[in-house]
Amino acid sequence: MLFYYAVKTVSLASHIALEEVGADYESRLVDFATQQQRSADYLGINPKGRVPALATSQGVITETPALLVYIAQTHPDSVLALPADPFAFAKLQEFNNYLCATVHVNHAHRMRGSRWVDDEAAMAAMRAKVPQTMAESFRLIEEEMLRGPWVLGEDFSVCDCYLFTISNWLAGDKVDIDQFPEVAAHAARMREREPVRRVLGLHGIE
Amino acid sequence: MLFYYAVKTVSLASHIALEEVGADYESRLVDFATQQQRSADYLGINPKGRVPALATSQGVITETPALLVYIAQTHPDSVLALPADPFAFAKLQEFNNYLCATVHVNHAHRMRGSRWVDDEAAMAAMRAKVPQTMAESFRLIEEEMLRGPWVLGEDFSVCDCYLFTISNWLAGDKVDIDQFPEVAAHAARMREREPVRRVLGLHGIE
Repeated sequence: MLFYYAVKTVSLASHIALEEVGADYESRLVDFATQQQRSADYLGINPKGRVPALATSQGVITETPALLVYIAQTHPDSVLALPADPFAFAKLQEFNNYLCATVHVNHAHRMRGSRWVDDEAAMAAMRAKVPQTMAESFRLIEEEMLRGPWVLGEDFSVCDCYLFTISNWLAGDKVDIDQFPEVAAHAARMREREPVRRVLGLHGIE
Repeated sequence: MLFYYAVKTVSLASHIALEEVGADYESRLVDFATQQQRSADYLGINPKGRVPALATSQGVITETPALLVYIAQTHPDSVLALPADPFAFAKLQEFNNYLCATVHVNHAHRMRGSRWVDDEAAMAAMRAKVPQTMAESFRLIEEEMLRGPWVLGEDFSVCDCYLFTISNWLAGDKVDIDQFPEVAAHAARMREREPVRRVLGLHGIE
């Protein structure tokens, strides 16, 4: 398998998952600085021009929640094994989707405002609200979602790879992670894991 | 099970899925006109103050992609049975996530701009770009994703419930669905299904 990623993007979550399960894969850096995600070659892999993308023998998979579950499902004896109970699996998916469709979207209004507006004043208005929307999302995560020590409780899961990735964005979004002690402790716990440490440098994270 | 929905929202997708599988459930309308989604009672069910939400004997599930898969997974002998192959399941999830995190988000910039900005000029700038972003998303769906006759090919799936729901928003977003003949034919095909017809009226759709 070939895993396409870019520095300081959500692709870190799937990259951690691949390391956690001991997947047989190679990494391919997509250089956003030179707009490589818009090249004809890359659009042939992912027509959306985004990362992550995972090229498998059956075809290419994109979208973080889909990829995380695929990686877990194809490694059923790993630490990321999925819950067999449909309700437990739904709660895992619910968490991933909240990160994907609400929290990541809130964050994207800081740097990717041109997706939704064309004028600079509106982009500035978007950037201005990001500290508030991200803090509100993490308040909900802290109080309602993160059970501890891991997102889903005692069992480590793909949700942990994903939460850690997005909690790394808080400082840049001008949100003090220490307002959320459970989230901060979770991030510290993740940084102690060997599979996490192996890929942080590739993503430009100290 | 109790299914919480609101008129003209994404909750239609899960409502169709419940009907398609013949689920044992009751519907509960959440009245957005009176801000019922922000009431203490409803926030006790879904602290996010959104729909859909499904109250099961094990607890409440939210987020459309999580709900759709839960409904399908708990009805394995139904028309919405999930593919057993992990890659095929990942493609189903990839499609749902594109609708959730990109297409629905594009659409939300027309009516829900206050999620991301506070000033009216920026909200107007957001509304102005919605026809373009929705058309771009549906171009990609038409050309790259919708295999026909159903989203995933020959097999009907939860993706069809979801695509139909969002393609209903195009007219309001000032996008002519007839630019996308495969999407338009898909919507017409969906409207012929008895389970779909049973819930359209509840959602204020003719």
